[in-house]
Amino acid sequence: MEDRPNALGRTRVKQALSGAVQPGAVLVRGWVRTVRRTKNLSFIALNDGSCLDNLQIVVDSEAPELSDLSRLGTGACIEVHGELTASPAAGQPWELQARQIRVLGGADADYPLQKKRHGFEYLRTIAHLRLRSNTFGAVFRVRSALSFAVHRFFQERGFLYVHTPIITANDCEGAGEMFRVTTLTPLDPPRNSGAVDWSRDFFGERTGLTVSGQLQGEAFACAFSDIYTFGPTFRAENSNTSRHAAEFWMIEPEMAFADLAADCRLAGDFLQYLCRYALEHCAEDLKFFDTHIETGLLEKLAALAEAEFQQMTYTEAVKELQGCGRAFEFSPAWGQDLQSEHERFLTEEVVKGPLFVTDYPKDIKAFYMRLNDDGKTVAAMDCLVPRVGEIIGGSQREERLDVLEGRMAEVGIAPESLSWFLDLRRWGSCPHAGFGLGFERFLMYVTGMTNIRDVIPFPRTPGNAKF
Amino acid sequence: MEDRPNALGRTRVKQALSGAVQPGAVLVRGWVRTVRRTKNLSFIALNDGSCLDNLQIVVDSEAPELSDLSRLGTGACIEVHGELTASPAAGQPWELQARQIRVLGGADADYPLQKKRHGFEYLRTIAHLRLRSNTFGAVFRVRSALSFAVHRFFQERGFLYVHTPIITANDCEGAGEMFRVTTLTPLDPPRNSGAVDWSRDFFGERTGLTVSGQLQGEAFACAFSDIYTFGPTFRAENSNTSRHAAEFWMIEPEMAFADLAADCRLAGDFLQYLCRYALEHCAEDLKFFDTHIETGLLEKLAALAEAEFQQMTYTEAVKELQGCGRAFEFSPAWGQDLQSEHERFLTEEVVKGPLFVTDYPKDIKAFYMRLNDDGKTVAAMDCLVPRVGEIIGGSQREERLDVLEGRMAEVGIAPESLSWFLDLRRWGSCPHAGFGLGFERFLMYVTGMTNIRDVIPFPRTPGNAKF
Repeated sequence: MEDRPNALGRTRVKQALSGAVQPGAVLVRGWVRTVRRTKNLSFIALNDGSCLDNLQIVVDSEAPELSDLSRLGTGACIEVHGELTASPAAGQPWELQARQIRVLGGADADYPLQKKRHGFEYLRTIAHLRLRSNTFGAVFRVRSALSFAVHRFFQERGFLYVHTPIITANDCEGAGEMFRVTTLTPLDPPRNSGAVDWSRDFFGERTGLTVSGQLQGEAFACAFSDIYTFGPTFRAENSNTSRHAAEFWMIEPEMAFADLAADCRLAGDFLQYLCRYALEHCAEDLKFFDTHIETGLLEKLAALAEAEFQQMTYTEAVKELQGCGRAFEFSPAWGQDLQSEHERFLTEEVVKGPLFVTDYPKDIKAFYMRLNDDGKTVAAMDCLVPRVGEIIGGSQREERLDVLEGRMAEVGIAPESLSWFLDLRRWGSCPHAGFGLGFERFLMYVTGMTNIRDVIPFPRTPGNAKF
Repeated sequence: MEDRPNALGRTRVKQALSGAVQPGAVLVRGWVRTVRRTKNLSFIALNDGSCLDNLQIVVDSEAPELSDLSRLGTGACIEVHGELTASPAAGQPWELQARQIRVLGGADADYPLQKKRHGFEYLRTIAHLRLRSNTFGAVFRVRSALSFAVHRFFQERGFLYVHTPIITANDCEGAGEMFRVTTLTPLDPPRNSGAVDWSRDFFGERTGLTVSGQLQGEAFACAFSDIYTFGPTFRAENSNTSRHAAEFWMIEPEMAFADLAADCRLAGDFLQYLCRYALEHCAEDLKFFDTHIETGLLEKLAALAEAEFQQMTYTEAVKELQGCGRAFEFSPAWGQDLQSEHERFLTEEVVKGPLFVTDYPKDIKAFYMRLNDDGKTVAAMDCLVPRVGEIIGGSQREERLDVLEGRMAEVGIAPESLSWFLDLRRWGSCPHAGFGLGFERFLMYVTGMTNIRDVIPFPRTPGNAKF
């Protein structure tokens, strides 16, 4: 799809290298990665972000119109007219014999992205420039491709895309802590009986940033049957780990008339579709990750794309963990959350592949999950994958008004605060189910990058909202 | 694309009505729109959100397994097993002869969406249920289809999709007022010399909700050449008009190596692509809008899809307005913003079609727009369409470091506050251009809906963050 000619008359490097362009006169523009000078010739590696590989520009240093290349260091932006020809060099089918070079924007020796390899931690401090490196070029091409794959998957299946709100007054969407959104004067907010008078804030009540679009997604599923969200969500948690960000994107499908089994099927199909899409559309970038970031990555993705997803209940999982003879840091016990070490043991040692664990104790899951007939567990599922653990969490939702009201009372949510959500069960209620996939967690899995900050364009974490 | 069989064994109403399904036994699920009872037969209009039209269910009132339909009023959710047969009734090719009906969720007579037509203002108070009405079903199907069309357009052209940050510390992204994002205790925030000590807030500085992803988009364009954003943006403006929302979605492409002419070409191509996509993929819903919301809508969209976009400079536009003899409410004057009445006159009376107005006075445009050689105007463009006025705004960006620094000084932006943005001009700078399309404004144009609150799932406006 990306091989149409660019509207600006320039040939993209990807096109030039693909053999899709006729040999002969072309115009390319991009950024200089390296310059190598020999006596009579200079070789410029040019990248324009359209693909990982650089186009080699061959420059005759004697030609007068090519001689003023003093500003042409690493990082410079240039325009080159030349002849695309088959390359005699190994490892590249095509190269460009320069006829004319124009420097659009120079780069001095203080350009922060010099040839030497930089650590990811340093590169985070220049997030606006790291985009021009091999690793981050690949990361954000994969991010873009998989974003589109998300939409393709659901649109092909007749799911409606919905933009759920970012600013919300619901304070019980999920377990996470919320950022406050306000326009009140911070030093002297209006007060009422000693407390802040939120009725005088912009929205007339206390508002924050959403932690999930699920509740609103349910309203859409109860009208359009099959829907999905794909948007930013937020956690105001002071977690400075490699897996937590304050702002991240989440995908949340919701299906009317679906039970937990159908929910698991959709989740498995979705993960496999995304893996296949990446393998097919991002082959060059994934090969780079396989070589430089995580050995065996391609094999891992190919395996997931074809895997049989296993299934066991939480109760079975706990029995398995208790009986396996392994000494865990945290002893597995019914009623406790599964720890990462437990999840990895189950996927890597027990089923040796992806696994749905279902029917968790109600007390460790959200109020909206459907109560099972045992009265103790809910129709929840977590999808676990080897090396990572949980990658998707979902459930069938409680569609019975009285049961849901009972659960809300148990956990202390006032019914009037979610009356609209209860209305969905009051009129035309239907069984429904859905799940959430944290997009960055999945990108980490696909690219092998181990820090969430390195798969987000400009990450937001405690103490950092730079750029 | 949406016609694949649903994973749950049910046939979607859209499939049943399309003739794509073999006559014979099918299972459908959905919501009852109306029930009409005659002596021996009942007729149920069933809708599942997959399309505008209802499937007619024919029920033999004598059959014992179909007789208990007491809870089966408007709004109920039902499951029907039956035979899909050619319909003798006019206006519908297929109907379903019910064999078995199960009520999944009843609806009493107090269901707020009864058969009578409700005003849009009332429907906004039940935004979670209005989704089940004809108008809002159509609106959100079109919204979903056009969201996908946005991605298709750019991905087909090799543009990289980027998720620019929602939370930002840049306070100069655009003209709009910003919401503050904070986790400080509202009643007693930490202070330093009498002011709020933002260094102790979550991100270590004062942050707000983005008003545009453009600046970060530029960083991506300076690495990947062609990029686009599509995400939520915010305005903390106390504007209670039919065209302003506090939260809305914006599309912002950015192209390296593009000048203003290329920017206009992309904008025109984009609008026409979206119109054609809607006409092709949302024909039934658009016909509904043409009949019930805006007469002539289909013709309007077909005309825009084929139109030649005209172009004139701002200076020419002002001359045209001053010389036309029309008495405007606001006298046109060089250096003043064009008013809506001016924009409509230019498109509806002067060029009779869509129009790019270019090269506005620098003082009424943003600091990042490229200064023209006259020193007075910038390489900006607004795309105006009949009946609406401005629908897209864009510009070539200032790529010259010294000129940009000068403009920032003029408007009072401290260079250190945007040092990363200046870096893009310091190393490997390139000409680039882009534009922004407010997605909701465009949806209003496509659907004919006249209030922005009616094209947003759960709108956020002053005093309202319900649902």
